[in-house]
Amino acid sequence: MTDRAARGIFAAVLTPVDDTGRISVERYLAHAKWLLAKGCHGLGIFGTTSETQAFSVAERQEALEAFLAGGIPAEKVILGVGCCAVADTVALVKHALANGVTRVLALPPFFYKNNSDEGLFRAYAEVIEKVGDDRLELYLYHFPQVSQVPVTHGVIEKLLAAYPKTLKGIKDSSGDLEHTKGLMTSFPQLAVFAGADQHLLDVLEGGGAGTISAAGNLNCAANRAVFDAFEKGDMAAAREGMKLVAGVRQTVQRFPLIPGLKHVIAAGRKDPQWAVVRPPLVPLGEAQGAELLAALEAAGYVYDPGL
Amino acid sequence: MTDRAARGIFAAVLTPVDDTGRISVERYLAHAKWLLAKGCHGLGIFGTTSETQAFSVAERQEALEAFLAGGIPAEKVILGVGCCAVADTVALVKHALANGVTRVLALPPFFYKNNSDEGLFRAYAEVIEKVGDDRLELYLYHFPQVSQVPVTHGVIEKLLAAYPKTLKGIKDSSGDLEHTKGLMTSFPQLAVFAGADQHLLDVLEGGGAGTISAAGNLNCAANRAVFDAFEKGDMAAAREGMKLVAGVRQTVQRFPLIPGLKHVIAAGRKDPQWAVVRPPLVPLGEAQGAELLAALEAAGYVYDPGL
Repeated sequence: MTDRAARGIFAAVLTPVDDTGRISVERYLAHAKWLLAKGCHGLGIFGTTSETQAFSVAERQEALEAFLAGGIPAEKVILGVGCCAVADTVALVKHALANGVTRVLALPPFFYKNNSDEGLFRAYAEVIEKVGDDRLELYLYHFPQVSQVPVTHGVIEKLLAAYPKTLKGIKDSSGDLEHTKGLMTSFPQLAVFAGADQHLLDVLEGGGAGTISAAGNLNCAANRAVFDAFEKGDMAAAREGMKLVAGVRQTVQRFPLIPGLKHVIAAGRKDPQWAVVRPPLVPLGEAQGAELLAALEAAGYVYDPGL
Repeated sequence: MTDRAARGIFAAVLTPVDDTGRISVERYLAHAKWLLAKGCHGLGIFGTTSETQAFSVAERQEALEAFLAGGIPAEKVILGVGCCAVADTVALVKHALANGVTRVLALPPFFYKNNSDEGLFRAYAEVIEKVGDDRLELYLYHFPQVSQVPVTHGVIEKLLAAYPKTLKGIKDSSGDLEHTKGLMTSFPQLAVFAGADQHLLDVLEGGGAGTISAAGNLNCAANRAVFDAFEKGDMAAAREGMKLVAGVRQTVQRFPLIPGLKHVIAAGRKDPQWAVVRPPLVPLGEAQGAELLAALEAAGYVYDPGL
């Protein structure tokens, strides 16, 4: 078990595939190690940005083992595990724990919509009970625009009442700062992460834990600089640093997000294979890709993988 | 391979679980055989009404084998196979074909939203290519309210152009009769099923194939009577028969649909275990259950499992 709740800058790490469509462990490790070297406190593995739902449970388990064997420290990982079927989520969580990963980020079951708080509570509770391991550190994952299944305050309250030691935090990917502030106010005992790094400083000022962000795949150093300035109390530097953080985020979100991020890395690493996405996503076209690279440059950003 | 496209009355069969949470093969077979005896032309297995997404791929494969071994003819089955991960869908389709089931009903990958036609086409195409079996008969599954991922005309056109022999039909669970009519008009070569059996006669009159319906779990005999009257050209009888079909449908959809249907069967079979649902669904409460049973009676319906 880690000694305290997660805090800081986490990238929601993209998942590269090789030319057979399998997860490219080599590319993944190079990118992940660059992220850690550039300042990420940790890595969000198999979240939304990771195209996770396009991979089977077995592919995810096999890849996690390879990532850890390749040098990613288990304590740096927060692992996405939320599936539609409780049995799949349980399998992923047990596997994570068996491999030393204790922090998991769990979407609610996301096929059926308009669920009751009681129904979502039961889904999470069944996972916790079937896993039955005190080391488990559960972070809920609220991403209503994509999952279409919000994690309501009611669900959080029920889980906190039943599993106060297991429930550690929540990632709010709503992009709605007021919603994130509401979580920080209502649940001060939870580590609250935002998905949108343009809200990083607001989250830190509100007592939140940090960000687990898609744009962090490109911009972890700028995010970390803001975090460090905040920790030192240098709010002028923190606010200045937010300009690049917000500029990059606002640029990449004007394009299809995951294909766009992969396109930038493919260009920076001179490795076209990096741009490959799994269906139902499609890669950026050439013109759109060039437009994104130019827009990032105009926002003052340069991707440098340090090759 | 079956010799022609599916047509007629199909129930979207509920999936009972036993007191350990596993699929109850015994209950399933009793219900499925009752449905066939009462007039279903076929059985929609592992669709939305079946709580499919709450079961793992392995559970679904194991259950299908047990259903077939228990006496459900493979040629009566249309099997739900659409998962978020292409690898999972491929595994289910290959397993189905290996067990003699050639008709599959496939949701598009349903986690990522706002997909392009090209992206959804690629997802379906990858399944077809990786399965690589001429026996495959693919039915697309359009259920935008739940999946939040519509199967557009553009996707259908691309698939028809690329795989005219594999793509056999579509189930339209939108509940929007105009949309269903649009499919029948635009794609006369496809077997078009509605999910909402209150549209059964409209579908048949428009040249569609029939229904694959949730309410069919209760009301297959009434649906079949309408179908047979239509086939005989007795439109007066068909229209009269639609009153019970529509009345039952409109009644059950005023309640949480899957828990409600399971509640009625549990009451009729005097088997409370039948009312159990998997999270994130929750069973009807006692009062709501009694209200549903009374409303069905008021609509002129009696569930008789023939015990």
